Amino acid sequence: MQGRIILVLISIAIIAFARVAGAEVDREKLLKEPGVYATFAAFKVGDQWSHMDKQAKAGAVEEVKRVFQMHVDKVSVDTHLVRGLSEKADFFLRVHSKEMIDNQNFLVDFMGTSFGKALKNTDTFNGITKALNYVPKFPEDLKAELKTPPPQGSPYVVVVPIRKDAEWWLMSQDARMAMMQEHTGATVLYLKTIKRKLYHSSGLDDLDFITYFETAKLDDFNNLVTALLQVRENRHNKRFGEPILLGTIRPLDEILDIMSR
Amino acid sequence: MQGRIILVLISIAIIAFARVAGAEVDREKLLKEPGVYATFAAFKVGDQWSHMDKQAKAGAVEEVKRVFQMHVDKVSVDTHLVRGLSEKADFFLRVHSKEMIDNQNFLVDFMGTSFGKALKNTDTFNGITKALNYVPKFPEDLKAELKTPPPQGSPYVVVVPIRKDAEWWLMSQDARMAMMQEHTGATVLYLKTIKRKLYHSSGLDDLDFITYFETAKLDDFNNLVTALLQVRENRHNKRFGEPILLGTIRPLDEILDIMSR
Amino acid sequence: MQGRIILVLISIAIIAFARVAGAEVDREKLLKEPGVYATFAAFKVGDQWSHMDKQAKAGAVEEVKRVFQMHVDKVSVDTHLVRGLSEKADFFLRVHSKEMIDNQNFLVDFMGTSFGKALKNTDTFNGITKALNYVPKFPEDLKAELKTPPPQGSPYVVVVPIRKDAEWWLMSQDARMAMMQEHTGATVLYLKTIKRKLYHSSGLDDLDFITYFETAKLDDFNNLVTALLQVRENRHNKRFGEPILLGTIRPLDEILDIMSR
Amino acid sequence: MQGRIILVLISIAIIAFARVAGAEVDREKLLKEPGVYATFAAFKVGDQWSHMDKQAKAGAVEEVKRVFQMHVDKVSVDTHLVRGLSEKADFFLRVHSKEMIDNQNFLVDFMGTSFGKALKNTDTFNGITKALNYVPKFPEDLKAELKTPPPQGSPYVVVVPIRKDAEWWLMSQDARMAMMQEHTGATVLYLKTIKRKLYHSSGLDDLDFITYFETAKLDDFNNLVTALLQVRENRHNKRFGEPILLGTIRPLDEILDIMSR
Amino acid sequence: MQGRIILVLISIAIIAFARVAGAEVDREKLLKEPGVYATFAAFKVGDQWSHMDKQAKAGAVEEVKRVFQMHVDKVSVDTHLVRGLSEKADFFLRVHSKEMIDNQNFLVDFMGTSFGKALKNTDTFNGITKALNYVPKFPEDLKAELKTPPPQGSPYVVVVPIRKDAEWWLMSQDARMAMMQEHTGATVLYLKTIKRKLYHSSGLDDLDFITYFETAKLDDFNNLVTALLQVRENRHNKRFGEPILLGTIRPLDEILDIMSR
Repeated sequence: MQGRIILVLISIAIIAFARVAGAEVDREKLLKEPGVYATFAAFKVGDQWSHMDKQAKAGAVEEVKRVFQMHVDKVSVDTHLVRGLSEKADFFLRVHSKEMIDNQNFLVDFMGTSFGKALKNTDTFNGITKALNYVPKFPEDLKAELKTPPPQGSPYVVVVPIRKDAEWWLMSQDARMAMMQEHTGATVLYLKTIKRKLYHSSGLDDLDFITYFETAKLDDFNNLVTALLQVRENRHNKRFGEPILLGTIRPLDEILDIMSR
Repeated sequence: MQGRIILVLISIAIIAFARVAGAEVDREKLLKEPGVYATFAAFKVGDQWSHMDKQAKAGAVEEVKRVFQMHVDKVSVDTHLVRGLSEKADFFLRVHSKEMIDNQNFLVDFMGTSFGKALKNTDTFNGITKALNYVPKFPEDLKAELKTPPPQGSPYVVVVPIRKDAEWWLMSQDARMAMMQEHTGATVLYLKTIKRKLYHSSGLDDLDFITYFETAKLDDFNNLVTALLQVRENRHNKRFGEPILLGTIRPLDEILDIMSR
Repeated sequence: MQGRIILVLISIAIIAFARVAGAEVDREKLLKEPGVYATFAAFKVGDQWSHMDKQAKAGAVEEVKRVFQMHVDKVSVDTHLVRGLSEKADFFLRVHSKEMIDNQNFLVDFMGTSFGKALKNTDTFNGITKALNYVPKFPEDLKAELKTPPPQGSPYVVVVPIRKDAEWWLMSQDARMAMMQEHTGATVLYLKTIKRKLYHSSGLDDLDFITYFETAKLDDFNNLVTALLQVRENRHNKRFGEPILLGTIRPLDEILDIMSR
Repeated sequence: MQGRIILVLISIAIIAFARVAGAEVDREKLLKEPGVYATFAAFKVGDQWSHMDKQAKAGAVEEVKRVFQMHVDKVSVDTHLVRGLSEKADFFLRVHSKEMIDNQNFLVDFMGTSFGKALKNTDTFNGITKALNYVPKFPEDLKAELKTPPPQGSPYVVVVPIRKDAEWWLMSQDARMAMMQEHTGATVLYLKTIKRKLYHSSGLDDLDFITYFETAKLDDFNNLVTALLQVRENRHNKRFGEPILLGTIRPLDEILDIMSR
Repeated sequence: MQGRIILVLISIAIIAFARVAGAEVDREKLLKEPGVYATFAAFKVGDQWSHMDKQAKAGAVEEVKRVFQMHVDKVSVDTHLVRGLSEKADFFLRVHSKEMIDNQNFLVDFMGTSFGKALKNTDTFNGITKALNYVPKFPEDLKAELKTPPPQGSPYVVVVPIRKDAEWWLMSQDARMAMMQEHTGATVLYLKTIKRKLYHSSGLDDLDFITYFETAKLDDFNNLVTALLQVRENRHNKRFGEPILLGTIRPLDEILDIMSR
């Protein structure tokens, strides 16, 4: 028992040091810059968790929060509740950092907590952000449209992993750009209500892209995706979703609370 | 033990408040209007449930009923028994509300009960209802046929998730309408014995549509589906079912009773 | 303990009543008539069963037999041992009745026994029998051949679920009939040693047909299937088997005995 | 305890009777003749086995050996270790007999032992041996080559299940023979170092063929398969492996010993 | 307890003998020569491990280290941490030796430790190294480029299993070489930052190739794979990844430590 207390003290010391040595990672910057690594890690809570008693659960929740704190100078973590809207996961974490190994180190520590040990990691998607590929050559009016400020504080989140077919990659850059212009044109109507972010995954995962969306209007989102199914670029989606992760943005505390009932 | 009693009292207080503050959601309206969100959540009962003793089960069943009551002002829930007719699920809930997050909140509470913790969520399908797309342009006689009142009080239910191929979405609206007219023509014979309802899923799930049927005559239903396989639109079904969920409409009490034996 | 005895007495009373009120369902008639519903339910015995003690197992076996007896006026059930010949199941039940809900009610009761709770339902196929579709228009000599009496008392059983492609269903009735005539011609050689039965599944399951075979000569059956692979209709089998269930016909007692060792 | 001793005595009595009544099945003959049924049954050891104590394991091992002995007059069983070389199985049994039900009866008894109950049957492939189909019409020099005696005492074994596409089966016998001659030509170089055996599976499993290989030189085997990928017949392999089972031939005792550590 | 001590002593004796009798296998040589067998074995830690107490875990870790030591004269083993970057595995071992059975014997012993028994083997890929196939006929300037020394001490590792389609294998050697030259040309830019190694798998696994990469720059790796998707040879990849295993190179001690928290 004493060993444990010492361990806790050491942990606190490490956190304190971390907070002094380096400030918190700049989330806003990470979400805008190219060259940032993202890991989407989805989890389901296993049977063993529900067999733990209240006090053990409460302790485990504190342990998770400490792990989040310990990595605050390296990674930025967003938390999303999926339970109820997909059988694939209970929740997922979106982790951003400047080096993939920082994502891994955070997730390894998270999965090493008592709570983490009760989880099943159901899906993990890795990606990297890049400078825009096709947009610089789009017509000026489309470029202007794309400056529409995205919505803030949306409750819903949708993650769509995508894999293109060989024909897509073997097209000329111009042919691909023409198709992406058509694709982008179809999104203009929804720029005000749907925020999107793109990650490149080829080689980092069994995917080519991860597309991430936030919105308050799922009816608009259904219309947007229907519009995107109707452009020629859709012929080259070997995989679109499978799984689509639909969830709601919720603070860590709320997710831990829901899982601990 | 005292903590528990207080918790129960608070729960009752919340329910009472809910019932006063807002009336029950209007099920009939929800089932007719566009812009309504539906979540089909299928479950299988896990091993741990059968190891619980009678009293614990009875308490868990009461807990489930309270959760249903607590959400009665936001969601309408239909219950269906699948066990025996598919290995995919023991039962599924069809949840309707005006906001997807209300479906999620209900299901999260349901899955947080002692009964819910013993369940495995095997499949979840999300959709939204919309105004009719092709029907307004159908010939008048077909439109008249479609006014045939559907059957009431049918025991059987069939859920068929559908995904269309890229060619379907890239066809002109007219070409799609011609095919849907042919499709609809094939259903006329069965309007009197089979009730159907359509949900749009693109972007909300790894599906494009959820089709939901109620009937007392499964032989008619087999004939209807065979007829639908014989129209050209069938060439564009990348996924039809997989899984088809065949079940019977049963009250919550009966399903809980069957699962608790 | 007393509660249990009373329960047993009531159960016996119910069975007695059932046997008086309605006679046993006519198995021979069910196996010949159109409009009969069949459910093939395959099961694997779970770990928990082998941990039960001898007496509990013996009690559970009696419980299963009572469930079979209780439904004897509605459903006819055949039992088949798969263990050893497929990793997909230990055994499967073939259930026939005039209403699908009777199949469900029987299987729900079966799965609610102590033995049933230890089972994993690995596959379920639903179908309906129908009047012959193509045979009436076959040439007279082929029709005469088809009157060959099938073998009786065969030990082996094979179930092959089948799904046709869209092109099959979009062919003209004549084109389909020509192909089915070729298909049927290939079976003539084996009519004496292989008994077959067809169920229609479209809309009732993720299948179009369930084909069921009984034989004492598996070498003939291998030759028959090879012959059927060589007719043009085979081009339109999107799914053929997957899984094929190969087993042996065994009485309920023997299957329960094998599973209870 | 006394009950157990009596059981053992009875078992011994039965074995003794079996050994007297019928001699051991002739393995060499079974491995050469047509019309012999083979079942390849692959298993993984479950968690519960490692929780058993040493003595219980030792008893269970003896039980397995008795089951092998009891069926020695009907089936011939070869044992192969897969663990380490595939995640699909720990070991597999290759069972031969004159009637498929004898394979089943042996495997049912094997799976009914304490060891068997701790196993998960991960894959089962059924086949039948037949007289050579294409070889009789091959040119004389190729036929002469095929008489090369295969290697003996090879340590490695590879099982490759194969399924052909519809086009293969719809080709003329001559076209198929031309392709099989090309296929066979590609194997000549490896006849001295690789032994092969073919089983026909259509209708007995979700396969058309099981190909079984023994070799001491896996580099040669890699070259052989690469050569077979380069003949036209390869275009018609809808499934080749999936899973390939690569293992080593080991006596039953060694496999039981490895699994019991 | 005494039995255990003796066992340990014997083990030590065996190790001592092994170290005397044969020196450690030459890792550098194994990693360069043709005709070397590689087994990539990926594992996930099961629930039972986290239920073991600290002391039992510590003992189990020592047991694993002894197994590594015991095989040091036959196999060379590299260890990689996957947890956090893929849901497919927690870690994987890359095992090299001159005979596949040595890989198997090492892995069987590893999986027979207390730690090994708590693992689930999630994926295993087998391959063999060969002399370069196409490079000798490449133009001199490309051959010169290929002599660029690969990076050393890279933290990231990526394993990509690959399966080619039938058309690839049926092309002429010249046509394949032209495509491989184009493929190789696309890699030149990344030779300085990405190290690669190729294994041939046809017949040894459900794969044709295993490609193994080490890098410190995952952004370069994403660019490399994107470039490889854009050459014609990509049309013939029936499988590319699925799963891609992305991880970091970590010493055995660190991996055991992470898994034992």
